[in-house]
Amino acid sequence: MTYTKPVLAATLVAPRRLEVREYPYPSALEPGAVVLKMRASGICGTDKHTFRGETEQYVGTEYERSTPFPIIQGHENVGVVAELGGGGATAFDGTPLAVGDRVVPAPNRACGRCHMCARGFPYYLCRNLENYGNSLTSAQTPHLFGGWSEYLYLKPGTAVFRVPDELSDEVAVLTEIFAVTHSLERAAALPRPAGFRPGDSVVVIGAGALGLAHAVKASLMGAGHVLVLDPSARRRELAMRVADAVTFAPGDEVAREVRACCGGEGADVVVNATGFLGAFAQSMAMVRDGGTIIEVGAFVDMGDEAFNPAVICGRNLTLMGVGGEDLRAYEGTLALLARHHRRIPVHEIVSHRFAIEDAPLAMTTALDADASAKVLIVPRP
Amino acid sequence: MTYTKPVLAATLVAPRRLEVREYPYPSALEPGAVVLKMRASGICGTDKHTFRGETEQYVGTEYERSTPFPIIQGHENVGVVAELGGGGATAFDGTPLAVGDRVVPAPNRACGRCHMCARGFPYYLCRNLENYGNSLTSAQTPHLFGGWSEYLYLKPGTAVFRVPDELSDEVAVLTEIFAVTHSLERAAALPRPAGFRPGDSVVVIGAGALGLAHAVKASLMGAGHVLVLDPSARRRELAMRVADAVTFAPGDEVAREVRACCGGEGADVVVNATGFLGAFAQSMAMVRDGGTIIEVGAFVDMGDEAFNPAVICGRNLTLMGVGGEDLRAYEGTLALLARHHRRIPVHEIVSHRFAIEDAPLAMTTALDADASAKVLIVPRP
Amino acid sequence: MTYTKPVLAATLVAPRRLEVREYPYPSALEPGAVVLKMRASGICGTDKHTFRGETEQYVGTEYERSTPFPIIQGHENVGVVAELGGGGATAFDGTPLAVGDRVVPAPNRACGRCHMCARGFPYYLCRNLENYGNSLTSAQTPHLFGGWSEYLYLKPGTAVFRVPDELSDEVAVLTEIFAVTHSLERAAALPRPAGFRPGDSVVVIGAGALGLAHAVKASLMGAGHVLVLDPSARRRELAMRVADAVTFAPGDEVAREVRACCGGEGADVVVNATGFLGAFAQSMAMVRDGGTIIEVGAFVDMGDEAFNPAVICGRNLTLMGVGGEDLRAYEGTLALLARHHRRIPVHEIVSHRFAIEDAPLAMTTALDADASAKVLIVPRP
Amino acid sequence: MTYTKPVLAATLVAPRRLEVREYPYPSALEPGAVVLKMRASGICGTDKHTFRGETEQYVGTEYERSTPFPIIQGHENVGVVAELGGGGATAFDGTPLAVGDRVVPAPNRACGRCHMCARGFPYYLCRNLENYGNSLTSAQTPHLFGGWSEYLYLKPGTAVFRVPDELSDEVAVLTEIFAVTHSLERAAALPRPAGFRPGDSVVVIGAGALGLAHAVKASLMGAGHVLVLDPSARRRELAMRVADAVTFAPGDEVAREVRACCGGEGADVVVNATGFLGAFAQSMAMVRDGGTIIEVGAFVDMGDEAFNPAVICGRNLTLMGVGGEDLRAYEGTLALLARHHRRIPVHEIVSHRFAIEDAPLAMTTALDADASAKVLIVPRP
Repeated sequence: MTYTKPVLAATLVAPRRLEVREYPYPSALEPGAVVLKMRASGICGTDKHTFRGETEQYVGTEYERSTPFPIIQGHENVGVVAELGGGGATAFDGTPLAVGDRVVPAPNRACGRCHMCARGFPYYLCRNLENYGNSLTSAQTPHLFGGWSEYLYLKPGTAVFRVPDELSDEVAVLTEIFAVTHSLERAAALPRPAGFRPGDSVVVIGAGALGLAHAVKASLMGAGHVLVLDPSARRRELAMRVADAVTFAPGDEVAREVRACCGGEGADVVVNATGFLGAFAQSMAMVRDGGTIIEVGAFVDMGDEAFNPAVICGRNLTLMGVGGEDLRAYEGTLALLARHHRRIPVHEIVSHRFAIEDAPLAMTTALDADASAKVLIVPRP
Repeated sequence: MTYTKPVLAATLVAPRRLEVREYPYPSALEPGAVVLKMRASGICGTDKHTFRGETEQYVGTEYERSTPFPIIQGHENVGVVAELGGGGATAFDGTPLAVGDRVVPAPNRACGRCHMCARGFPYYLCRNLENYGNSLTSAQTPHLFGGWSEYLYLKPGTAVFRVPDELSDEVAVLTEIFAVTHSLERAAALPRPAGFRPGDSVVVIGAGALGLAHAVKASLMGAGHVLVLDPSARRRELAMRVADAVTFAPGDEVAREVRACCGGEGADVVVNATGFLGAFAQSMAMVRDGGTIIEVGAFVDMGDEAFNPAVICGRNLTLMGVGGEDLRAYEGTLALLARHHRRIPVHEIVSHRFAIEDAPLAMTTALDADASAKVLIVPRP
Repeated sequence: MTYTKPVLAATLVAPRRLEVREYPYPSALEPGAVVLKMRASGICGTDKHTFRGETEQYVGTEYERSTPFPIIQGHENVGVVAELGGGGATAFDGTPLAVGDRVVPAPNRACGRCHMCARGFPYYLCRNLENYGNSLTSAQTPHLFGGWSEYLYLKPGTAVFRVPDELSDEVAVLTEIFAVTHSLERAAALPRPAGFRPGDSVVVIGAGALGLAHAVKASLMGAGHVLVLDPSARRRELAMRVADAVTFAPGDEVAREVRACCGGEGADVVVNATGFLGAFAQSMAMVRDGGTIIEVGAFVDMGDEAFNPAVICGRNLTLMGVGGEDLRAYEGTLALLARHHRRIPVHEIVSHRFAIEDAPLAMTTALDADASAKVLIVPRP
Repeated sequence: MTYTKPVLAATLVAPRRLEVREYPYPSALEPGAVVLKMRASGICGTDKHTFRGETEQYVGTEYERSTPFPIIQGHENVGVVAELGGGGATAFDGTPLAVGDRVVPAPNRACGRCHMCARGFPYYLCRNLENYGNSLTSAQTPHLFGGWSEYLYLKPGTAVFRVPDELSDEVAVLTEIFAVTHSLERAAALPRPAGFRPGDSVVVIGAGALGLAHAVKASLMGAGHVLVLDPSARRRELAMRVADAVTFAPGDEVAREVRACCGGEGADVVVNATGFLGAFAQSMAMVRDGGTIIEVGAFVDMGDEAFNPAVICGRNLTLMGVGGEDLRAYEGTLALLARHHRRIPVHEIVSHRFAIEDAPLAMTTALDADASAKVLIVPRP
């Protein structure tokens, strides 16, 4: 491919220093590599933390890391295949990729060889996981390892998912967030008295994009009641529209009110989709005995919460930590979004769109949680 | 039945006041009630807590309670049917009970009518659970609601399990503790990357009777490695004999050593069978990413532990609180004990036997964790 | 209660002899018994078989039976509590029932004492199961053991579920059929490669009321594609409306077409909701390797089908037989119907309503599968 | 590596024509390929079928095939790494392989790219599965694609498992058969009333090597009762020794006797480990209502059995077809064999050993099911 113009990409040079830089278009693709012409890329909570310099991620894990500045951020991506390395590449559905295919790439890439990969564990447990927009520095060729760019370089072996035609870019870019809701699919397999069953009540604490995705997914999986708790009236209103949720603002009596809405006992499942301290205690106050708490928002270390083992035991609670998306959830997510996109205004989760050149403004907007939901970086056509 | 002698029973009149009292033999049984002539009754960790006045049990649950002194303690029981109320009663296997049948009774009795019972949840979630040896005062007729007695009165609807002939009373009395290990059966149904599978490594922290029961059960369910951590050399030695366990004493390097024994990643499952603070942090240090921690020993509120939601998320851990035994685990437990009793010296978990009259000495002995394992109260023949 | 008028009830005196008879209102209720004033009762496939004299039900089971004529049919019921026996009765949600409560009763009553009940197995495995509208003869007092009657007598211990106000009688009467779809909930817990996951494709063969209930439930549980196969254009159209289904008429190429709609491999789950021979072979042709077939329509022995163990093995298929509803599915069903009843025209599954006096005509109508879906018997007010 | 001697390998030239041929040692290994110096290779039921010309395997699946004669048979293998292709190779535990490592290789190799692989399904569902000893002809270089040879060539990407030192070659060679018992692990995750739980009764029909492996595994996973049915007294005696099984010879009353041994209801799980017609009907007669039948022995099409959908429905049975081993079961299998090899004489499943040159005699011996269990081909040192 002859592509001679420089590639524009928003680059985080250091905490709070987001600059638009130019990179050369990749000169020679490895066999199996793919270059995407970007259509949209989201700003995620993790991106905000990194921007602010809260870079201790995956604390306590083997792949705890600090950010290798400079980086091109952006791991919630949708784009069109622009070029394929030698030998071509295969989509997740086993069919060959072609130039022009619109796809969502996985945000991470597993080694496939470590003990965790080898045992068949989900790729998020890989010991050598690489994260687009996060763990790969743009200081090294071919540079384009993040989505806030005109082009994104995907290393060989990166999973790539076709986007159904009926889904807009705005919806497709939400695929990665929805793929985190494999949490609820895992909960569906937990034996009673834990777990999620059709007709169950599900509480979601925090109506950011991740919380909303959980609310929508719970609704689509047959929740009998979806209850969403968030301080922002705008977000609560969005939760009502996309998940037919009953909503609550924080308050002294909210736990009691939520329990009353769940037949008095509390919710079968509580999803804690905030990274804020105190939300775990609130989850405990809202879940029924024998129920399940899904901890999903805490990607960055905000410190300890109190935790009483006697209560976990005495109440027979199950607590499930979920650190991110699962490859096996993408196809289902895309099928579900395609099936329901006319009825459910999932695209409203996207609140703003900015050009690459306006990435700093995009970030400022995203940091104002009250005014924004999902903010996108959309390259000029 | 004509039974005119008074019935001897060790009675906890107040914290630390254990007296041997006499009660009348029950004069008229309710329809469906059963009187057992006791063969043996264990001293459980809960009994020790109650004795010491640490009576805030099931904290944070709807059935949080304080002890209705005086009580006859003893809920780990084996006895022989002495008398049946009108209409008879049925064993858990659906066959009629007869005088002379040797049985293990369930330690609790569910109402069968509350929302939790009605939904088919396990009986330990019943809103009106009655606990023999704990929640029923001996001040009320027919008094004999605990096992440290010559006779035990079982209210109608109490589940009763036949004991296979080949099991001694010493082994049968351990049934209730082993029925707590439904924890591992629930873990076996958790979807990967969590859960227990044959060949997995299981760490048990704390080799009291409950910890040993978990070690034995893990071994019988096909654990590839059973690792037991306890400060007492005697208990560690017992863990080796009954569960073919590799054992560890506490120490600065123990978490690293345990991980090394589990292929470097940590154990697939860690069972925290102590009520002591700090053991949860240790569990976290020993479990592999994506693995499961079972919290099972903390029946009494010992206070909070630190807990970092970011680590639970980042490491994709599952935490399962288990507050006690499950009716559905008794038949399996008895079948397993019968199958393996010749090979596995489970009876060695019983370290001491005392007559009812010596209950205070029995309690003193049980309180010395280092010198004792399971202490029994055995009525004189 | 003083109730002196005779009670009208359609009575099946012998195969094909459906007569309207009068019975006395029950004179004295047992403690715990409930009398319902009927609002509506459905005609089920089983009822049709019994009417035709195909009375060998539950073949090969311990509770294989022939019908104890005369019987009042009707086990899909909704009614209002008219009278309570001494001591009152409790709804499934643990709250006391009161006269005037609108409820759906369970169609069966378990003994609670046999080995199957005692082990905590679902009530449909009870060894002494009694079936309203089926196994209880109206020759014995208090006679009113079926729903095609002005009043229905519920023996003590029959599970009873409150109907949310927003649900019409037409929808409430479908609760029992929807409760059979616990089949899909069980499938959701099957480990991969079997089982149902959000985004999966589900084929339903047969769009009678049971098939439609499965299609709706699959859709509500997050199916990515629902495909329904039925010869009747009217039923297919209904499947589109209630389950957003892609529909197929039988034909030589239908299996190939269905597989093509499921990404080429076949469906993740095939529900065989017909009692007709040949449908099992069709299920095999439509399911993907490693997938799941749910056999649910075959309540009456229609004879053998061919079955090749080498194909079941070689293709790693799972086959799950489901013989009826599960008590644990009622509350979830009612919650789901209440949540979605405005959007999903479930009430359209009801095609006809007849008075008790017109029960013979109702049956004739129901027997014409092409012209009818669910036919109701509705007492005159 | 300089290796100039020809490599001896038993070669099936056509049905019933087993010849010992010489092949050149592979001259240049692909990157990632591995050559094993064979220690032992088993004769499997599939091998016997192929020898007899019953070559229609995996009937009804996409990878139905006929045998590409000539082939070197042998897919149950243990050997020592003799040479590694460029870049080396990694064992399943994520550590690099070295010359001299004793390993068990997987018998199949998945493409990793088809829709089934991509969706994360077990490798046995791969659309392009290659089978050592079966689907790869020795007519093509590097020829050595089966284990009845002095050397075995493993293509890049073949899974390879380290053998613990304490396991003899005789036990290690059984790893593949034991890995088929992931069937029981899947059963352990089935929700009640189906599935396997500790204390359950498990019937195994057929005490060939596969049936014995299931009996041993059931015992190690905590079966309360293991019952084995086989016409051969020698095999029954072996089942008693390795699985502490109660055994039965076929007979008119055997189903009734088996049910009586299982508390009257029948077994919780029946494993049909024969390829013979009629065994499915027997499985139905021995399983309890709501229980599980595992179909595992039928790799070759022996024709249809009768199957009554009304019985599957009415009795709420689950039927699970299992077509072979699962990669995820190897590490657990090896850990279990290592843990229990001193106590359980698993090596007695091996009845005969023959040199490569005596492969025809080995086959004749293996075909006499009554006289043999597992027959090995063991190269001369």
